[in-house]
Amino acid sequence: MEPAPAVLLPFSRTEYALRLGKVRVEMDRRGLEMLICPDPSNMSWLTGYDGWSFYTPQAVVVTHDSDPVWWGRIQDANGAKRTVYMEHDHIHGFPDDHVMSTERHAYEHLVLVLRELGWDRRRTGVEMDNYYYSATSHRVLIDGLSDAEVVDATGLVNWQRGVKSLQELEYMRRAARIVERMHDTIRETIAPGVRKNDLVAEILRTAVRGTEEFGGDYAAIVPMLPTGVDASAPHLTWDDRQFETGQGTFFEIAGCHRRYHVPLSRTVFLGTPPAEIRTAERAVVEGLEAGLDKARAGNRVSDIATALYAALERHGVEKEGRCGYPIGLSYPPDWGERTISFRTTDHTILEPGMTFHFMPGLWMDTWGLEITESILITEQGPAETFCEYPRELFVK
Amino acid sequence: MEPAPAVLLPFSRTEYALRLGKVRVEMDRRGLEMLICPDPSNMSWLTGYDGWSFYTPQAVVVTHDSDPVWWGRIQDANGAKRTVYMEHDHIHGFPDDHVMSTERHAYEHLVLVLRELGWDRRRTGVEMDNYYYSATSHRVLIDGLSDAEVVDATGLVNWQRGVKSLQELEYMRRAARIVERMHDTIRETIAPGVRKNDLVAEILRTAVRGTEEFGGDYAAIVPMLPTGVDASAPHLTWDDRQFETGQGTFFEIAGCHRRYHVPLSRTVFLGTPPAEIRTAERAVVEGLEAGLDKARAGNRVSDIATALYAALERHGVEKEGRCGYPIGLSYPPDWGERTISFRTTDHTILEPGMTFHFMPGLWMDTWGLEITESILITEQGPAETFCEYPRELFVK
Repeated sequence: MEPAPAVLLPFSRTEYALRLGKVRVEMDRRGLEMLICPDPSNMSWLTGYDGWSFYTPQAVVVTHDSDPVWWGRIQDANGAKRTVYMEHDHIHGFPDDHVMSTERHAYEHLVLVLRELGWDRRRTGVEMDNYYYSATSHRVLIDGLSDAEVVDATGLVNWQRGVKSLQELEYMRRAARIVERMHDTIRETIAPGVRKNDLVAEILRTAVRGTEEFGGDYAAIVPMLPTGVDASAPHLTWDDRQFETGQGTFFEIAGCHRRYHVPLSRTVFLGTPPAEIRTAERAVVEGLEAGLDKARAGNRVSDIATALYAALERHGVEKEGRCGYPIGLSYPPDWGERTISFRTTDHTILEPGMTFHFMPGLWMDTWGLEITESILITEQGPAETFCEYPRELFVK
Repeated sequence: MEPAPAVLLPFSRTEYALRLGKVRVEMDRRGLEMLICPDPSNMSWLTGYDGWSFYTPQAVVVTHDSDPVWWGRIQDANGAKRTVYMEHDHIHGFPDDHVMSTERHAYEHLVLVLRELGWDRRRTGVEMDNYYYSATSHRVLIDGLSDAEVVDATGLVNWQRGVKSLQELEYMRRAARIVERMHDTIRETIAPGVRKNDLVAEILRTAVRGTEEFGGDYAAIVPMLPTGVDASAPHLTWDDRQFETGQGTFFEIAGCHRRYHVPLSRTVFLGTPPAEIRTAERAVVEGLEAGLDKARAGNRVSDIATALYAALERHGVEKEGRCGYPIGLSYPPDWGERTISFRTTDHTILEPGMTFHFMPGLWMDTWGLEITESILITEQGPAETFCEYPRELFVK
């Protein structure tokens, strides 16, 4: 039997220790003795864990007096042994008869593990508002931890992830190179008569090939590319109909490297765009410029949103709501970090090393336009864009 | 303003009416006056809704006295108008300030909608154990529906989806053609020195191109292709390292058309496979044959599992747990229907029109082998396989 090769961690052990330290400080501030994280991106950020296993229950458990514990399906415990930094005695798998069972629930097994570890009376935080933590999981957990106080800790870890390390920024810069190539592919390939799925095939191919130096990973969201009236809806994917002259299509896509995302949206019009779309283009480009100039360390997130909306309004374009969110490490179904929102009401202070998708999407009644930038807040001056890509409506 | 083009439903209105009827019968049996379905595949199966919007709260609400109601984020209400069969007054969007907010929760808005409709005192079922129904969503819902009895209805709709219609089978046969092409791509492309990501790029390209007659959709799971020792873990994805001689890699992939999946796994060995892997190959192929012969209408699911494990045991291969699950319409993170499990303890009776991924994966300490079949239970005789693909360890 050949010895298992060493785990190839994407970050240094020091970086994982720093992350754990930040989380423990916040746990301490909230009086938490234990934190249960079912969010796959938090699991990965804390331990290195990587795998498409989030469709069955799994979590990382953080305490003050032990390395993190990985818990999940027994067959995925093997995946944990291949990807996390902790010793194998910190990896616990629940038996396969707990999978998709109406008689046994996986969280009953987590309760047993916590009891064995003597952690079942601790003041516990859990990420209650997460895709991968169902109402039933919570019911089973609180029934099982009846001697523990269990409180909501949604976002506790996510907020620690906002400021990126140099290694994280390096991965994101690689993702930026990838998404630029994806847009090049779009511009080269799109034409009247081309089926949408055939264009997506080329986009995905470019995304995963990456460059000669580094490969691409799967993005947490598949390409979204609604055309014409469908572009009034932001989240439609694709079908096998052909592109036609006289229609606009926006492309909401991201490059991804080692689970780190850099989204970039652009819009393509086949034929001659109507005046209202040209007006919207000018408005959005000016809005981006105005927002970028406010995206400075020490300013508030709301300053960016306010600058964008003021610029849009000067062109008679009404837009409200969310126009950006933090980005980085993620798993499906979302590449955002789910903390800050670019809104006029979010007054979070911008810090150097924060990364965002600045995303002034316009979804009107009969068309849509997206020209966006992924940005890095720097020590001084306006935000740096991850991509160097023409900030325009592309007409072909 | 050009009029919106008609909604292109993937199924006839009659088929949607039959589906709704089945669900209502089961609701009635359980004494449910209202059913809240946040599962995206159930939402799509019931209404035609399609979009990558499940990362914010959304649901379809079924009652006995009204067409289904679609509820989700306001910008995705536009996507609902483009994809569902119901009239627009059955589509409700929550405002954007409920998105990723710590002050407002989207389910507060659903409660308001249900109150306006006069449905807030009804005996209600909700899919409590679903990816897209968090512990917090449930807490907000039951707080808001304080005059209603709210019970768990996880799986209620899923169980109605088991027997497929002719149109569903047609989509699955197309998905089967696609996954066969994906395996052809693997056999043509894989070689020592090829980077894993470059192979995945070609697999995804083939998957989405589909054929000249029909395009491919995104599968609910990305390709999983662990190599060597990593293949002891079933759910690892890929990186940018090169394939090497002397290693086996299994490919767990699915073709997808209009959200209908046909998974098919095969294993490739570069070089000369060790004897134990050849033994495992023979065991799995015989096990598949034995199981397929038992996969007949009127038999029990457990008959398939028992036949498989007996065949494996004859070759000295120990395996337990789940070896198959129902397939069809799905969204990430899972392409299974989450009802039946191929296990020796699941005695569900097989019915014509049921479709499964028969999946005897072997994940050993230092290697893994997957040779699987997607199957259709027919009126008479053994199950039909969706794919015609060599049932073998492919050596190159």
